[in-house]
Amino acid sequence: MSFDRLIARIAQLQNPTVAGLDPKLDFIPESVKEEAFSRFGPTLEGAAEALYLFNVGLIDALWDIVPAVKPQCAYYEMYGWPGVRALERTIAYAKSKGMFVITDGKRNDIGSTMEAYAAAHLGTVEAAGRTFTPFGADALTVNGYLGSDGVRPLLDICAKEDKGIFVLVKTSNPSSGELQDKMLGDKTVYETMGDFCEAWGESLPGTYGYSGVGAVVGATYPAQLAELREKLPHTFFLVPGYGAQGGGAADVAGAFDKKGLGAIINSSRGIMCAYKKAGAPEDYAAAARAEAIRMRDEIVGYIGKIVL
Amino acid sequence: MSFDRLIARIAQLQNPTVAGLDPKLDFIPESVKEEAFSRFGPTLEGAAEALYLFNVGLIDALWDIVPAVKPQCAYYEMYGWPGVRALERTIAYAKSKGMFVITDGKRNDIGSTMEAYAAAHLGTVEAAGRTFTPFGADALTVNGYLGSDGVRPLLDICAKEDKGIFVLVKTSNPSSGELQDKMLGDKTVYETMGDFCEAWGESLPGTYGYSGVGAVVGATYPAQLAELREKLPHTFFLVPGYGAQGGGAADVAGAFDKKGLGAIINSSRGIMCAYKKAGAPEDYAAAARAEAIRMRDEIVGYIGKIVL
Repeated sequence: MSFDRLIARIAQLQNPTVAGLDPKLDFIPESVKEEAFSRFGPTLEGAAEALYLFNVGLIDALWDIVPAVKPQCAYYEMYGWPGVRALERTIAYAKSKGMFVITDGKRNDIGSTMEAYAAAHLGTVEAAGRTFTPFGADALTVNGYLGSDGVRPLLDICAKEDKGIFVLVKTSNPSSGELQDKMLGDKTVYETMGDFCEAWGESLPGTYGYSGVGAVVGATYPAQLAELREKLPHTFFLVPGYGAQGGGAADVAGAFDKKGLGAIINSSRGIMCAYKKAGAPEDYAAAARAEAIRMRDEIVGYIGKIVL
Repeated sequence: MSFDRLIARIAQLQNPTVAGLDPKLDFIPESVKEEAFSRFGPTLEGAAEALYLFNVGLIDALWDIVPAVKPQCAYYEMYGWPGVRALERTIAYAKSKGMFVITDGKRNDIGSTMEAYAAAHLGTVEAAGRTFTPFGADALTVNGYLGSDGVRPLLDICAKEDKGIFVLVKTSNPSSGELQDKMLGDKTVYETMGDFCEAWGESLPGTYGYSGVGAVVGATYPAQLAELREKLPHTFFLVPGYGAQGGGAADVAGAFDKKGLGAIINSSRGIMCAYKKAGAPEDYAAAARAEAIRMRDEIVGYIGKIVL
């Protein structure tokens, strides 16, 4: 009912990072694509198989040093229902290796519909008298524009199934300020959303001080990141924007508390496409592992030993 | 590159309504479920087949009188990848019958990721040297919390493929005001989002005065609906909240301009579950058609003849 499982794994591995799995075909080595298309022909099923094989290679290279993966739904939906099946298979494989899975779907809707999203991504569903787990992630990213009743069904599932959510607070993209930085009285929109996270999290308290309601705060806005760390003491941060989007280790240092807890830093293209810099597509998994270690060491160099 | 196709069909049928296809199993008659599970066993494939068969029955009953359908992604994702496959099949079937399809996904992300969502839901994708249409809807609902660069990739696809988007402005749920009604200087958050819609729509002008960037505005807030109709002259409205959520025809009348244009009113449970009131599950399609006609006549009674 909180991020205790994630935090314990971060401390165990001394690594507060998450590998984004955004496997569009452009990012996948030719040899992997050839294998997949040779099995399934020039079809979306073939594309989906390439996504899955690529992810398996990455997970095999990362599971013992990186605590979590974050598949981005868009890159699976892009390949139709076979792509979405590859998302399901990827989640199951990552979980079988002990990784914490954050599905990045930024889902949002009215209460009755959020019940369906909560069941889909974090919970279970009944059909023909049996219980199924459609996707089975450990956490889901959520957009809070609709307010409390779009979030409450998720809190119920989180309490019941020991899962968590990350609500968009201050996103990493260049135009995030158009709405998020505007002032609502004496607070910005993103501070207001951060306050909502603290309030929503009260029902999901955690052993290490952080609730089951986290926040997405971009590495590309380091001042806001440090400011929010101060103001939201019970809200765990998922921090995108490191690497390809421009954020560095110094930028994300402010996301952590004095124990080195409080945040997990995402890298997607930096890890997935590390092989492109190395010039060795057949060794994409080794290149991903080397980049994950470099990233871990760089960030831990700023925050020191992570202590529970 | 606008809602011209939708508006022309609304005028042709003299019906400014859309049937929401939110086919959770609880809403589906037993006979349909039995047929589906007998074919596929007690599996998510069976559940997905039930969704699809139910939708086909509804579409067959509605296509010649209702211009559009709005499948809600959550109710398909709830049944895993087979559910998402049922979404794809439903969209294809509705389009084969000439219906305009609005995928209600409320998608949102940073620019590079929105390109993937845009390709998934409205565009095409390349794989193995071929071009595929993953879902192929005519319009997608979108959450604008991330600002312009989360919307721009959609505008490009809308221009190229003659599609549209609906951005969440003032949602129909009870807690929508927690953020959306707050004041940003002299405007509310929802008015600010409405202004964004007008600005984003400038690149997608339409023949009938409405751009390809519409807005979601709930029937449950009639005062705001009428106020926004005045303030956003080029923004077409998708109006949820009629029927099961409590909005009536008088509440939605303010969504329309003097020609009876400017909005399309959604009913999901009201149409899908009309058979429950009639007490005749085997005639769910006939009950849906009767309710769609009743709803059409009630709304047209308020707005009069729709004139292009």
